[in-house]
Amino acid sequence: MGSLDEGHLCVEIENGMKLDVSEKEPETIAIEDAVKVLLQGLGEDFNRDGLKKTPLRVAKALREGTRGYKQKVKDIVQGALFPEVGLHDGVGHAGGVGGLVIVRDLDLFSYCESCLLPFQLKCHVGYVPSGQRVVGLSKLSRVADVFAKRLQDPQRLADEICSALHHGIRPAGVAVILECLHIHFPNVESVLLDSKHQGWVKVLVSSGSGVFGNENADAWSDFLGLLKFRGVTVDRTLTRDSVNHSWCPSSSSSMSKISSELVAANPEMVAAVASILRSLGEDPLRKELVETPSHFVRWLMNFENTKLEMKLNGFACGISDLLKPNGEISSRNNKQMHSELNLSFWSQCEHHLLPFYGVVHIGYFCPKGINHLGKSLLRSIVHFYGFKLQVQERLTRQIAETVSSILGGDVMVVVEANHTCMISRGIEKFGSNTATIAVLGRFSTDPAARAMFLQSIPDDTTSQIL
Amino acid sequence: MGSLDEGHLCVEIENGMKLDVSEKEPETIAIEDAVKVLLQGLGEDFNRDGLKKTPLRVAKALREGTRGYKQKVKDIVQGALFPEVGLHDGVGHAGGVGGLVIVRDLDLFSYCESCLLPFQLKCHVGYVPSGQRVVGLSKLSRVADVFAKRLQDPQRLADEICSALHHGIRPAGVAVILECLHIHFPNVESVLLDSKHQGWVKVLVSSGSGVFGNENADAWSDFLGLLKFRGVTVDRTLTRDSVNHSWCPSSSSSMSKISSELVAANPEMVAAVASILRSLGEDPLRKELVETPSHFVRWLMNFENTKLEMKLNGFACGISDLLKPNGEISSRNNKQMHSELNLSFWSQCEHHLLPFYGVVHIGYFCPKGINHLGKSLLRSIVHFYGFKLQVQERLTRQIAETVSSILGGDVMVVVEANHTCMISRGIEKFGSNTATIAVLGRFSTDPAARAMFLQSIPDDTTSQIL
Repeated sequence: MGSLDEGHLCVEIENGMKLDVSEKEPETIAIEDAVKVLLQGLGEDFNRDGLKKTPLRVAKALREGTRGYKQKVKDIVQGALFPEVGLHDGVGHAGGVGGLVIVRDLDLFSYCESCLLPFQLKCHVGYVPSGQRVVGLSKLSRVADVFAKRLQDPQRLADEICSALHHGIRPAGVAVILECLHIHFPNVESVLLDSKHQGWVKVLVSSGSGVFGNENADAWSDFLGLLKFRGVTVDRTLTRDSVNHSWCPSSSSSMSKISSELVAANPEMVAAVASILRSLGEDPLRKELVETPSHFVRWLMNFENTKLEMKLNGFACGISDLLKPNGEISSRNNKQMHSELNLSFWSQCEHHLLPFYGVVHIGYFCPKGINHLGKSLLRSIVHFYGFKLQVQERLTRQIAETVSSILGGDVMVVVEANHTCMISRGIEKFGSNTATIAVLGRFSTDPAARAMFLQSIPDDTTSQIL
Repeated sequence: MGSLDEGHLCVEIENGMKLDVSEKEPETIAIEDAVKVLLQGLGEDFNRDGLKKTPLRVAKALREGTRGYKQKVKDIVQGALFPEVGLHDGVGHAGGVGGLVIVRDLDLFSYCESCLLPFQLKCHVGYVPSGQRVVGLSKLSRVADVFAKRLQDPQRLADEICSALHHGIRPAGVAVILECLHIHFPNVESVLLDSKHQGWVKVLVSSGSGVFGNENADAWSDFLGLLKFRGVTVDRTLTRDSVNHSWCPSSSSSMSKISSELVAANPEMVAAVASILRSLGEDPLRKELVETPSHFVRWLMNFENTKLEMKLNGFACGISDLLKPNGEISSRNNKQMHSELNLSFWSQCEHHLLPFYGVVHIGYFCPKGINHLGKSLLRSIVHFYGFKLQVQERLTRQIAETVSSILGGDVMVVVEANHTCMISRGIEKFGSNTATIAVLGRFSTDPAARAMFLQSIPDDTTSQIL
């Protein structure tokens, strides 16, 4: 099947504009080449529909997502300092002198330097003005974003935002608190053995300068007092030393033997990621980046195509034994609706090589003579189709078809997911999420059955995974 | 006092980059000139610090915020259609055939064509694929944004998004639901008379094509079934005819006589807004835009400088009578802490001519011999300082100073606000909000008193105003 779009001389870039291919920079081309190596390593054909533009998309997203290397804080802050009189010394603090100013709940994302995956953060920034200087409020967000758009570690990110604002505004002090969320590293082996894989690594870091230089300072009490009622509670003992090892799950020692072997067996993939780091202007030999290529390859290999097919075949062979009907096929009226809700999944978007994750809800009519399907079997089906390069629409259909092939008919599948590509690329829609539906058999003709199943899905299921 | 920033040859634009003034387009210059007329009409000196760059900021923000006029949906969608097989006809719906795909909770903003103020919206888009075509998920958001970034009315916006996606994807049908929030039009007269001014006008609109063409279609049930648990409840009777009058509070008939006179007395301001509409590429004679200039001027005149000073003086004269201590001044230990929480306010950011709004919390120590200040008095003080061109830091200080001048001392003021400029300009940080503190007298030296007051402020006060 041919690609649906024409016009191969032009390629789409993030903002919906067109870019002539001849304008591509060498760094972009180098990243594209590296992504092709990675796709091959995953057992994929990078010329197949769906993957054709993936190398360019990944290159654009990575370069855009690390644009902070080229931005200067001075350019952002300098034009946005306003003289604002404050209270007289000795009387109190407010306005341009000593009255704390806080911007809370800034949604940002950054790239983890340990594994090259994006991570999400809520940023809270405060400063105490001095010298009758206040800064435009949006600049606090813009400055934070300059440092977020680099390969980062949470504590360094907090320190860099704090230091840059301190030098840019020259206030009495700056306070920064970051709530960071890093996707966990699932892998096929562990999720099949252990259904309770943790979804997220959370870490809270802080950084302070000037009147916030000492974590026992009164200024911190005021800052935390105002953050408290935004759902943030900070341990007063939190200092920049409290996070002294990498938070990234890729650097944990629990890397399985199978994963290690997979990485070792694919040196060309590791070299490709190192080349991406160079193309982003980083030094792959920098201490914190030495292991990054193998961490990223380890993550990617969860979604290896061939491994998945093999396992699925092995799995499918065993199913028929489990499901022998203990009698004749029941009539339609003899069936009961069953449902299994909130089966968590992880997958990798084939358009952007970025994770998407969420929950799957499966509803089905089952003849009375057969026990309903076990949760672990359905979970296995979900994981088998999740752990490959995917799109949500196909994932939904494949799960429905497989469940249907087992039960011979009436199946409905709803997938609710958050897509990393919706926050870490141009549109940055942090609150959005996606739902897809597949309906087979009776569900495709019976609106009442669909409505009954939809009503059984609890509210706000996507937020449960956070 | 001189401006703190140097380099007048360069001006800052939204993304933190610099732009040479000589590159300014004639439309930008025309809007700048119009904004200067508006500032003069407000009794302001557009050369004062804080306002110097306001004309350029407003021009840049308005042109950026209406960039949708120049964008083409075809450019966005065409490169992002992917072939994706679906279920066989007759078996069911999923994948590229008939399986509903929904993207929920997209945060967007648009400009109200009736008053030129930005309004916020949550957009939910769904489509039923056909012809084995699916579209990249982010494109649903990008297409919606093309039409949001124009002067709009909610129903037309929904219809345009729906129609554009239908023609771009050629699916079996498209459904769009928008939850729109429009700032209310407060005015000095009404808020002083009536403390309960409504903060927001909310409206929910929908639009459907193809299988969603009939509001009783089964496809709508599925779509609404999936939206239900995202907090959206849609009346099934909702159709495009149900919102048959403008939702904008500026077009309501309750415009006060004083407001009408103010608008009539400032024809040069009305002409300036009409010129802005022309510079954005709109026709000020288009039916829906004919009244827009006077609506916008009416909004702006709430923040007229001279009117405010006059009223404040009149108000201040009356205070001393209210506050005669009925005995000698009490000693410090004889004072009790009082607080007044969640006093709502509206103000206008002088950097962007955009509303900011939220709540003020006031704490003070009051001699035992004096009754604590009445809520209505404090509310009046808040409104007096809110209804002018402001920055939040100054608003906080002015309220504190005024309360202090009445009580002679120990005052703490916390202002929590949402700034329209944080969502309707480049950074688009929908979830963020800002807090500022002013402390006088005992509060500036006693951390325990500050902590006690901060703890008395309830959680999540900013969301109460929505």
